[in-house]
Amino acid sequence: MKDLIEPRVLKGFRDFLPEKEAQRLAILRKLEDVFRLSGFSPIDTPALEYSDVLLGKGGGETDKQVYRFKDHGDRDVALRFDLTVPFARFMAAHINELPLPFRRWHGAKVWRGENTQRGRYREFMQVDFDIVGPDSASADLEVLLLMHRCMKTLGMEKSVIHFAHRGVFNAFVASLGLETKTVEVLRTIDKARKVGQEKTREDLEVAAGAENARKIVLFIHPEESWKKSLDTMKEMVGAENDGVQRLSAICSCLDDLGLASGFSLDPSITRGLDYYTGVVFETFLTDLAAIGSVCSGGRYNDLASLYTHQKLPGVGASIGIDRLMAAIEELGLVSPAASASSVLVTCLEERLTGTYHRAAEAFRDAGVSAEVYPEPKKLAVQFSYAEKRGIPLALVKGEKEENEGVVGLKDLRSRQSHDGLTLESAIRTAKELLR
Amino acid sequence: MKDLIEPRVLKGFRDFLPEKEAQRLAILRKLEDVFRLSGFSPIDTPALEYSDVLLGKGGGETDKQVYRFKDHGDRDVALRFDLTVPFARFMAAHINELPLPFRRWHGAKVWRGENTQRGRYREFMQVDFDIVGPDSASADLEVLLLMHRCMKTLGMEKSVIHFAHRGVFNAFVASLGLETKTVEVLRTIDKARKVGQEKTREDLEVAAGAENARKIVLFIHPEESWKKSLDTMKEMVGAENDGVQRLSAICSCLDDLGLASGFSLDPSITRGLDYYTGVVFETFLTDLAAIGSVCSGGRYNDLASLYTHQKLPGVGASIGIDRLMAAIEELGLVSPAASASSVLVTCLEERLTGTYHRAAEAFRDAGVSAEVYPEPKKLAVQFSYAEKRGIPLALVKGEKEENEGVVGLKDLRSRQSHDGLTLESAIRTAKELLR
Repeated sequence: MKDLIEPRVLKGFRDFLPEKEAQRLAILRKLEDVFRLSGFSPIDTPALEYSDVLLGKGGGETDKQVYRFKDHGDRDVALRFDLTVPFARFMAAHINELPLPFRRWHGAKVWRGENTQRGRYREFMQVDFDIVGPDSASADLEVLLLMHRCMKTLGMEKSVIHFAHRGVFNAFVASLGLETKTVEVLRTIDKARKVGQEKTREDLEVAAGAENARKIVLFIHPEESWKKSLDTMKEMVGAENDGVQRLSAICSCLDDLGLASGFSLDPSITRGLDYYTGVVFETFLTDLAAIGSVCSGGRYNDLASLYTHQKLPGVGASIGIDRLMAAIEELGLVSPAASASSVLVTCLEERLTGTYHRAAEAFRDAGVSAEVYPEPKKLAVQFSYAEKRGIPLALVKGEKEENEGVVGLKDLRSRQSHDGLTLESAIRTAKELLR
Repeated sequence: MKDLIEPRVLKGFRDFLPEKEAQRLAILRKLEDVFRLSGFSPIDTPALEYSDVLLGKGGGETDKQVYRFKDHGDRDVALRFDLTVPFARFMAAHINELPLPFRRWHGAKVWRGENTQRGRYREFMQVDFDIVGPDSASADLEVLLLMHRCMKTLGMEKSVIHFAHRGVFNAFVASLGLETKTVEVLRTIDKARKVGQEKTREDLEVAAGAENARKIVLFIHPEESWKKSLDTMKEMVGAENDGVQRLSAICSCLDDLGLASGFSLDPSITRGLDYYTGVVFETFLTDLAAIGSVCSGGRYNDLASLYTHQKLPGVGASIGIDRLMAAIEELGLVSPAASASSVLVTCLEERLTGTYHRAAEAFRDAGVSAEVYPEPKKLAVQFSYAEKRGIPLALVKGEKEENEGVVGLKDLRSRQSHDGLTLESAIRTAKELLR
């Protein structure tokens, strides 16, 4: 016997078996419907791109997380590590074909060779959505509403979208005389949910001194009402601050829409990335806060500056599908995945193969999923297969039924048999039993 | 000004703009529904795998078409170049979790660094489906019926699935004393549709001699009826040949199902790959034969022999989504892609932003896609945007409408205005206009 190759998978990569993949497809399909309803267009970009396009010209010191290599034409190429950089490249390349404001969504895999501890994968799926063109409260709001609708559609009503404004934060940090430390303070606060309040205060004290740390901790503590939060901000950075005005406009619209309870004005939201310049947001699940944000994003003032001098401000968010699936599972919100047929057409007589397939086609034409057991075996074996697969109903037609011109339908859950049916009434009965 | 990076894409790779991506998603969604109806489960596998897993132990002489490299952990890895090899690895890895017969489908991108001439891409999408476990006429038939349903669902009713049997072909070639030349003859015939009958005869004469070439050309010529084709085969290789019996069984079932016109028993179908051992099939479009087969496959007697000693016979087929999309476009079968909203909620007064979004949400809740123009601009500018995006309707609410407590709905196709509506009646009117 020849040597076998072990059918192993790379660390951080995964197979998706039917049940899980059916769940993933169902999630993507629901999101696709939500995006369509809100006028967001789908796009796609290549998985592989020129390294300098993905990493910028300074891409010499390669990020270890990026899968980068020379292809057979000696081109320096890399697998995309997010959907934002390819989108920026896409906008610069197609700006003349895309009327602004441009709303897009993109659901696809990305790859990062990062540490696989703590449930991180090296291949994972993101769904990103953005509006590029206008810098307005209306565009910010549209993304917030879309995030809200996505969560609702996925059955995650018990979630709250926390939002803040980077401009306000920056002005506040500047008012403390800490401009040069803005990024450090930002990242410390961004980690607060993971490391806890005590550690955050300590880190802030090291970075900014005790008195400033105290003020910062006060500033990032959410007030019980928007009005109060906004008042505090106005006190700190002035009522004329653009960010404060933008937040006021958004809060007032959310009130108009009767959606206040789904959103929280939360100055502790900063997002770690330099990239953001306006509103920033994260989504937390009420019953599973520990999993962290399942949908995050913000406003940036220049999407594609690597590739074009044309300013392209925008606002967008990203859903981490793998984290979301983990949350749905942990919360027990998994809907039964339709990864199997509803009806197994059993096979008792090989010569009736055509009849079995005709029956299966009739079920399918009536919208009931069906499959034919592909060889004659004992009914017990076929029923056992159906149960393992989660197929609830079985159609039976042997010599006896053939002579009588009928079929039998068995509910494998209740073990109840419905005998002597015409094919049409078997289909009707199946539909009732499946309801 | 800093130097820009040209937003270029690798040769053989493509961006999908909204219209095209919406079409691709619509196709995948239709196929997903067909697979669900037939009890085929979705799976997914990693894009990146160990090179020896994808290429076998002899993977030393690297196939130039494969994107293969060392990752940051110095592992020898490669991007999948088809969905068959990963499926074989998947079956071997999960055989204990998957009850046989196992029906799966998998729609995903694959990568091959091949010559980009003649419309070939280096990144393209395939949809594969297989039944693993039984070796029976019923399983063969199930795949043929599924191919047929896929084509019908995609609006390609004018297509014919040609099928034959490799066992019959091999026995025929052996009967001519040409066993050692089987592969050569096979590949010559496989190319016949591309190179023409004359060239094929010449090549066959070189490979097998003039007399044998004459017999082969006769053998691969389809008869006008299944019965005649089967009779010829019986004459050539004997009625007891397993392949002839399998083909007879399949033909008789297709007759039973009243589907004879969608299928052609065609001995010129050989498929180039050594891999196949039983039925083989290709799908040709009646009005676009030149594009070649859009869905092909066959039966193999051992899927996963690289990874397990367990025999896993199966039958399956593969749809090339990119070729299919090209065909749909060339045949003018493209259905209008829903890549834009149905309603643009125009923005006249910034202070009404909340009202505009409430209106958009009401349309969405009623199943009508809507977007809000994100800043106050002249109506002409907003209408022009809608037309460029293909948005048919516009909702108008300015100061006048606000004072009267109404909205206006404009059909941008007919230029007709519907004024003085309540929001509810605007939604009703929109639904009627969109019908």
